[in-house]
Amino acid sequence: MIRIRMVIRYDGTNYAGYQVQPNGNTIQAELEKALRKMHKGEQVKVVASGRTDARVHAVGQVIHFETPLHIPMANWKRALGSLLPDDIQVVSADQVSEEFHARYDAKGKEYRYYVHHAHEHDLFRRHYTHHVRAELDIVRMKEACSHLEGEHDFTSFCSPKTDIKGTKVRTIYKAEVTKEGNDIVFIFRGSGFLYNMVRILVGTLLEVGRNERKPEDVKRIIEAKNRNEAGKTAPPQGLFLWEVFY
Amino acid sequence: MIRIRMVIRYDGTNYAGYQVQPNGNTIQAELEKALRKMHKGEQVKVVASGRTDARVHAVGQVIHFETPLHIPMANWKRALGSLLPDDIQVVSADQVSEEFHARYDAKGKEYRYYVHHAHEHDLFRRHYTHHVRAELDIVRMKEACSHLEGEHDFTSFCSPKTDIKGTKVRTIYKAEVTKEGNDIVFIFRGSGFLYNMVRILVGTLLEVGRNERKPEDVKRIIEAKNRNEAGKTAPPQGLFLWEVFY
Repeated sequence: MIRIRMVIRYDGTNYAGYQVQPNGNTIQAELEKALRKMHKGEQVKVVASGRTDARVHAVGQVIHFETPLHIPMANWKRALGSLLPDDIQVVSADQVSEEFHARYDAKGKEYRYYVHHAHEHDLFRRHYTHHVRAELDIVRMKEACSHLEGEHDFTSFCSPKTDIKGTKVRTIYKAEVTKEGNDIVFIFRGSGFLYNMVRILVGTLLEVGRNERKPEDVKRIIEAKNRNEAGKTAPPQGLFLWEVFY
Repeated sequence: MIRIRMVIRYDGTNYAGYQVQPNGNTIQAELEKALRKMHKGEQVKVVASGRTDARVHAVGQVIHFETPLHIPMANWKRALGSLLPDDIQVVSADQVSEEFHARYDAKGKEYRYYVHHAHEHDLFRRHYTHHVRAELDIVRMKEACSHLEGEHDFTSFCSPKTDIKGTKVRTIYKAEVTKEGNDIVFIFRGSGFLYNMVRILVGTLLEVGRNERKPEDVKRIIEAKNRNEAGKTAPPQGLFLWEVFY
């Protein structure tokens, strides 16, 4: 058996999320179905760096699995890719040691969130951006971001639906807001992210940008350790799992 | 009764085309369904500048219809827009004279065709571009374009499935190829376009770009007045009805 690590990219629009669940199509189910075809009906268990929610996208999700197949590594990308639907792509495939684990070995992740900031929504990017028409003060959002960086208990930015029982302390290495044409892009790099954390961060930052909160309120929200103190959860379609670091 | 002219925009991905047909969802059917709701169940006939095929998009399709409703013009866009699915948008609405006709009065149209020219397809734009991996010589395609401009009988660039019985003489005012990042964009402005004409033009130009035909072959193809002489029909998803001129 050899262990393979793959970087995959997907359009989450038509999926109930990454992880296999009783109802709804998932990315994991599609990957395992394609691998089963390659393995003559044998089940191949796929492990990812983490889940993504329904309608959330990935440009750099990382998975691993084990296989007894003797396929040259250079052919894996095309072999599996040709069996996947056109909204899931294999970016790269590499053989890794038997100790490599896509989830446990992840040292951090980068997420990006795209807001289309214009009077009208861009019809052709409606599945990949969150449309905001209101005025947004970028300087205020940048200041709020600076209060997010560092090691904090992010309980206030975690959905109560989480199944995490341990610590909610995480480190955000970088929290950034930039403008790309009509888009406002939020970039978060951190040691790890809690359930819905990036979407709650973005929802809160947008409230700061709309002058509904002060940038320094973010400090108070973190200290409160109470989900009700933070802003609304931003919708899923603007969110991209950008990169996983090992 | 007043006559209203609207500019509409749509993502054709999930439609069987513009025009109502027995099987499959169409843009016209969605427009008429939304208008019927506004008119308490009364049928409102919508006339467009012309059809678009399944999976073809529009950023500037023009329609007209008549209504007995007394709604301020400024409210029409939102009133109809709120009843349409999220892949059809109203860009503008204006009252026009009773003589205005979206199809008969159209003096010309502009179409654009987007080719994503890269080793890998952009997953998030797969419904809005045609992916071409092969090398393409833009200079050759530009030269071929110059032979398309002017008044010609475009029989060779018309699908035999057309229901046009009259002349196939049309004037192309502008045929252009430009590069926008990793995209190659074909722009055609003309007095009118035959069935599948833009897609056959693009398919033929791509063959010139791949060195499978010479730029000056285009002259011979036009003269042949035979669909078999032209190139393949490029796929629908890269095509946008960009503007209609009156």
